[in-house]
Amino acid sequence: MIKVSVMYPNGPGVRFDHDYYRDKHMPMLKSRMGESLRFYTVDKGLAGAAPGEPAPYVGMCHLFCDSVEAFQAGFGPHAQEIMADIPNYTDQSPVIQISEVVKG
Amino acid sequence: MIKVSVMYPNGPGVRFDHDYYRDKHMPMLKSRMGESLRFYTVDKGLAGAAPGEPAPYVGMCHLFCDSVEAFQAGFGPHAQEIMADIPNYTDQSPVIQISEVVKG
Repeated sequence: MIKVSVMYPNGPGVRFDHDYYRDKHMPMLKSRMGESLRFYTVDKGLAGAAPGEPAPYVGMCHLFCDSVEAFQAGFGPHAQEIMADIPNYTDQSPVIQISEVVKG
Repeated sequence: MIKVSVMYPNGPGVRFDHDYYRDKHMPMLKSRMGESLRFYTVDKGLAGAAPGEPAPYVGMCHLFCDSVEAFQAGFGPHAQEIMADIPNYTDQSPVIQISEVVKG
């Protein structure tokens, strides 16, 4: 299994609509990717490591797929529509990582 | 539920022993934190978003706890021992984030 982590950098004045992300964007992405997206998780940044330090990322999602090929097959045909929705919830560009799930 | 994400930056020449991390460090952390750590996941960085781009993080773990207080109560007394093990698997210092699990 692989995990695609989509991480939105935090910072002063960053705009991120967590409700829209959870209730609109992520369900839309799931509906477009269908079974190629096995499941997904959503995080809301609370804090960094030191007291008073902000979270490095304001929000994240993690997409779990059988393989990189399965992700590409499911995401690719809908990439334009999914990416075009980003300005509806944030002014940030995500940091993206593909990982092997060593322990799920 | 909260998630503590521990993310080790990638880069040229970075040292990271994924076997030690999975088989020694993480089980040691779990044994020290006990039930305050509900469960954890481990990722190995494979790639970035663009073809040929490296993963932003060479390895990550995510620690799931009932609350920030539960994490602090379980981790705090063993922090020194756990942190002292880091050089045994990497030369990197982790980026750490505490998140609310919006969708688990």
